[in-house]
Amino acid sequence: MKKSYLEMSERELSDSISALTAEYEAEKKKGLKLDMSRGKPSTAQLDLSNGLLKILDGKEARAENGFDVRNYGVLAGIPEARRLIADVCGVESENVVIGGTASLEVMYNTVVRAMIFGTGEGKTPWIKQGKIKFICPAPGYDRHFGICQDLGIEMITVRMTKTGPDMDEVERIVASDSSVKGIWCVPKYSNPDGITYSGETVRRIASMKCAADDFRVFWDNAYIIHDLDDKPDKLLNIFDIIKGTPNEDLVYMFVSTAKVTFPGSGISAFISSGKNVDFALAHMNYQTISYDKINQLRHVRFFGSADGMRAHMKKHAAILYPKFKITLDALKGELDGLDIAHWEEPRGGYFVSLYVLPGTARRVGELCKNAGVTLTNIGATYPYGVDPDDSNIRIAPSYPTEEELAAAMKVLCICVKLAAAEKLLGK
Amino acid sequence: MKKSYLEMSERELSDSISALTAEYEAEKKKGLKLDMSRGKPSTAQLDLSNGLLKILDGKEARAENGFDVRNYGVLAGIPEARRLIADVCGVESENVVIGGTASLEVMYNTVVRAMIFGTGEGKTPWIKQGKIKFICPAPGYDRHFGICQDLGIEMITVRMTKTGPDMDEVERIVASDSSVKGIWCVPKYSNPDGITYSGETVRRIASMKCAADDFRVFWDNAYIIHDLDDKPDKLLNIFDIIKGTPNEDLVYMFVSTAKVTFPGSGISAFISSGKNVDFALAHMNYQTISYDKINQLRHVRFFGSADGMRAHMKKHAAILYPKFKITLDALKGELDGLDIAHWEEPRGGYFVSLYVLPGTARRVGELCKNAGVTLTNIGATYPYGVDPDDSNIRIAPSYPTEEELAAAMKVLCICVKLAAAEKLLGK
Repeated sequence: MKKSYLEMSERELSDSISALTAEYEAEKKKGLKLDMSRGKPSTAQLDLSNGLLKILDGKEARAENGFDVRNYGVLAGIPEARRLIADVCGVESENVVIGGTASLEVMYNTVVRAMIFGTGEGKTPWIKQGKIKFICPAPGYDRHFGICQDLGIEMITVRMTKTGPDMDEVERIVASDSSVKGIWCVPKYSNPDGITYSGETVRRIASMKCAADDFRVFWDNAYIIHDLDDKPDKLLNIFDIIKGTPNEDLVYMFVSTAKVTFPGSGISAFISSGKNVDFALAHMNYQTISYDKINQLRHVRFFGSADGMRAHMKKHAAILYPKFKITLDALKGELDGLDIAHWEEPRGGYFVSLYVLPGTARRVGELCKNAGVTLTNIGATYPYGVDPDDSNIRIAPSYPTEEELAAAMKVLCICVKLAAAEKLLGK
Repeated sequence: MKKSYLEMSERELSDSISALTAEYEAEKKKGLKLDMSRGKPSTAQLDLSNGLLKILDGKEARAENGFDVRNYGVLAGIPEARRLIADVCGVESENVVIGGTASLEVMYNTVVRAMIFGTGEGKTPWIKQGKIKFICPAPGYDRHFGICQDLGIEMITVRMTKTGPDMDEVERIVASDSSVKGIWCVPKYSNPDGITYSGETVRRIASMKCAADDFRVFWDNAYIIHDLDDKPDKLLNIFDIIKGTPNEDLVYMFVSTAKVTFPGSGISAFISSGKNVDFALAHMNYQTISYDKINQLRHVRFFGSADGMRAHMKKHAAILYPKFKITLDALKGELDGLDIAHWEEPRGGYFVSLYVLPGTARRVGELCKNAGVTLTNIGATYPYGVDPDDSNIRIAPSYPTEEELAAAMKVLCICVKLAAAEKLLGK
């Protein structure tokens, strides 16, 4: 049964197509409607945080500094919220600015701020420097690429490896081209591969020599505490490494509780050097009076501490782990040994990244769609929406129920095989 | 007693200064600490909305379209929140985009969007048009001026009259200078004067002929339902007037529940033509996935309808009206007939705008401060923080208790008289 597709004869491939088509048609008849397109928490995960909704009343609505969180003020966030996030991230409170309800907006606004004002006092706004570029390790997070696209920032694709972005390439580019102003990184459980940057990768990023003195690392630590089991990946704290070096202001970190409490209704944070934080606040001061302090206090009361938040994440893991297992078991059971697909086995995050036979990912997406299974848009994990190999498929196992997921994975694996056989047969 | 200061002899002025200085010193000894600097709701007002805090639990967290508001999605806001705001504003839901927790941020982001992308498809970004300018009716809202200052937009001051901005001047400027791109308006209960634009003013704004085809009116309807009594000012609905005219896309309106529920934790909205809304959403789509839909649903559940929100505003009025009365009674009782001050009697909003003897406002601010009474920074109500007449003082009566307010007004009136007598005596 487990013969490599690459070793199949035309006849064998043809027979496979017939058999797989029959399987596919049978699945299609079921009228499935399954969505694995986005890294959305499931209802069961959302329910974990329902206690947050009623945790605060008007009488208790005071921050530890006595400030009534229901009124104007406190731009950088209430002290206990800054401390909570600082503790989770291993930084100091003064390096944390609490933002709105989504880190995507904090990232977008941070890029916009550099476009309009530059990265600091006396720096030239990016928008006045002609064409600027960002390094985009790929596959990566489509919404990072979207920010670049919206703002007219050229994207340079760099290959992801099993230890993070191809650092030889990254170092070469940042050293030689001063129009390169940033790099998008999801350093822990990367979106979509689920890879955690190795110690060497983090150290090399921290000590990069950049041609542009206003280059910044956009360190989207989206899955900082989003482990799936008790053998989590360890990510070096990049701020510990850059502290006191010429690269002290190199890194903008972003985190949020989108996948801790409620997406779109959580708290987010911008984390950086004192100098960067001061510069950000100096302009944010004109943008808003304060973000939602009531919601900040809700989060503090609900978790109590960083440990409380970490304990909460174990409840998410208990729901997510079986779904990742279903996904990986299906891939292993159906595709292992066929030489038409490979994948990572992440220990956290929200995705399984599947690489199918080059040139077949779009066909797989189309086949899945026609059978009622929605995947992340094929190509979306690459800049400009184009996967040069037409190979990567991002699987988001979190939202469907276990039964739905198993059904969707069955369809997906049939489609991966069918598309591969078609391709190899030259159909 | 009520002799005009302008008719006093040197001797009388000198005697007045002695008497007022004694009064002032007596007040100073009390060690007051009173803040009338910002339009902040009082604790009693905040308490009116405490019911909002616990109104939602996880089970009920679905929008009318079945969407779980605890999860990702719905960029423009949940339908019932858009409808609620539309009903309050007399517009259609599709013209309403719900933003984050503060309208200041929506305004800032709207200006930034025009800076980077222009005001619509095919329009040149403002930032690529060299020096651009905004018309700033003054006195006005300091944070509007702050946005211009932060973004390097030159401010052109236009005088406020009793019917709104000096429209002869506004029309002349917009018709002749294509680098003029915007005007800040608080059309109802203007900040700080409490003036509501007359029908003629609204009609003239709606039919302005602008040299710049990307000119926009920033219509900050901050006090749209913030009436103090049952004889509220009526503001024409500018959207009714521009509809179907060449100026259909002229107006960006902004509202929020900052002073309805909780400042910094309310809901805000951007309201404009279909074309402007589509353009805004096309870029917002890269900036965020959605704003806080849980908070949107909280507001909908709490108010039920626009009528519910209006009824809620009557409770605010019941708290605010006596404070405005204390303020105005003090001004009338202490300053009427002295020819050294005049003021408006607003029927809503958050401020009383006091004009003291030209050249004495800063002195009044200093005297008040030394006696423990904090006013809005003198000059802050003018572009670049400079009141050319050094005359306007913005009084914010909402935050202090009635007792505190009466004490603060007593000090203020003493200081206004003392500074005037000093000035007239040439001291």
